[in-house]
Amino acid sequence: MKGSRVEKQIEFAREIDRLKRVERRTLLADGSRLENSAEHSWHIALLAVLLVEHAKDREIDLLRVVRMLLVHDLVEIDAGDTYCYDEEGRRGQADRERRAAERIFGLLPEDQAAALRAAWEEFDRGETPEARFAAALDRVQPVLLNHSSGGKSWVEHGIRRDQVLERIRPAKEGAPALWKVAAELLDDAVERGWLQE
Amino acid sequence: MKGSRVEKQIEFAREIDRLKRVERRTLLADGSRLENSAEHSWHIALLAVLLVEHAKDREIDLLRVVRMLLVHDLVEIDAGDTYCYDEEGRRGQADRERRAAERIFGLLPEDQAAALRAAWEEFDRGETPEARFAAALDRVQPVLLNHSSGGKSWVEHGIRRDQVLERIRPAKEGAPALWKVAAELLDDAVERGWLQE
Repeated sequence: MKGSRVEKQIEFAREIDRLKRVERRTLLADGSRLENSAEHSWHIALLAVLLVEHAKDREIDLLRVVRMLLVHDLVEIDAGDTYCYDEEGRRGQADRERRAAERIFGLLPEDQAAALRAAWEEFDRGETPEARFAAALDRVQPVLLNHSSGGKSWVEHGIRRDQVLERIRPAKEGAPALWKVAAELLDDAVERGWLQE
Repeated sequence: MKGSRVEKQIEFAREIDRLKRVERRTLLADGSRLENSAEHSWHIALLAVLLVEHAKDREIDLLRVVRMLLVHDLVEIDAGDTYCYDEEGRRGQADRERRAAERIFGLLPEDQAAALRAAWEEFDRGETPEARFAAALDRVQPVLLNHSSGGKSWVEHGIRRDQVLERIRPAKEGAPALWKVAAELLDDAVERGWLQE
């Protein structure tokens, strides 16, 4: 089996397990602990199935969206999760992630390495209707969790509403109705003092 | 927004976050901690994309498989994860899970409640080619993790090879090539003394 197609696939399957150890800065909805990138990916993939009716583009390919969301964070296995409000940390992020993609997708048989890498790049570029909808889910879900946990993570990092609004701006393009939900949660969070004006 | 379609969807999105707190009996590949059901669902959904060429039935609908895998464990939010080798615990499991499905899918707008519940039931009955392939992934992935972590969970619970073979039998129907990989991992685990003969 060594070096065979299925062996490469199984090796990849073992390797990606490490995404479960990558911590994000978002707490779970109950505030009990930080979310990891694997369970985050599950959450938004299921939300894609559930919320596809809110995609701006009606002719969206749902499987394409789900595939992107399932792989979109894999590079974090090597590159780590970069906090979206950490200007410093974001420098060099693109390079780190490119090298990570090279190594991780490179474990796969060539055709699959190319296909999954293309899905990751499509997400990253955010130019297709599918990528824009996927980005909307990726941006709105943390707002939902942060709001559910009483804004703990926002308070801890001293985040302002305009920073989050800037962060979720792509959601306006990908899923306007979901952007609206998120914006209302932000208003509520400011009112409750969880988010700075 | 109260009680509107999108509000019900958002309420469901908050509720399913709890799956991240449901612990399974399988350790992560590095043995560092128990896996939870949300990250498990992510793992096998991505494996479905990757391994669909090994499905016994060539005409398989991949989106249908992925949708099933993303929702297949949601009932555990109420019913808990039942250890597959716990005869006692498995009694009453079906009833607990049915009640859980009622409540959890019931949070959704009616059409979506029916659709996601149908996906869960399709997985549970295991009668379609898609459900059989989904089951194969659900059964083979823990073998991969248990093997990667040096059989810790098998040793701890004193599991025998025939118990695991019985457990992964559905994989033979859904994805024979993956069943073969798992069976070889079991042979290796017996040789290493991680699994009882």
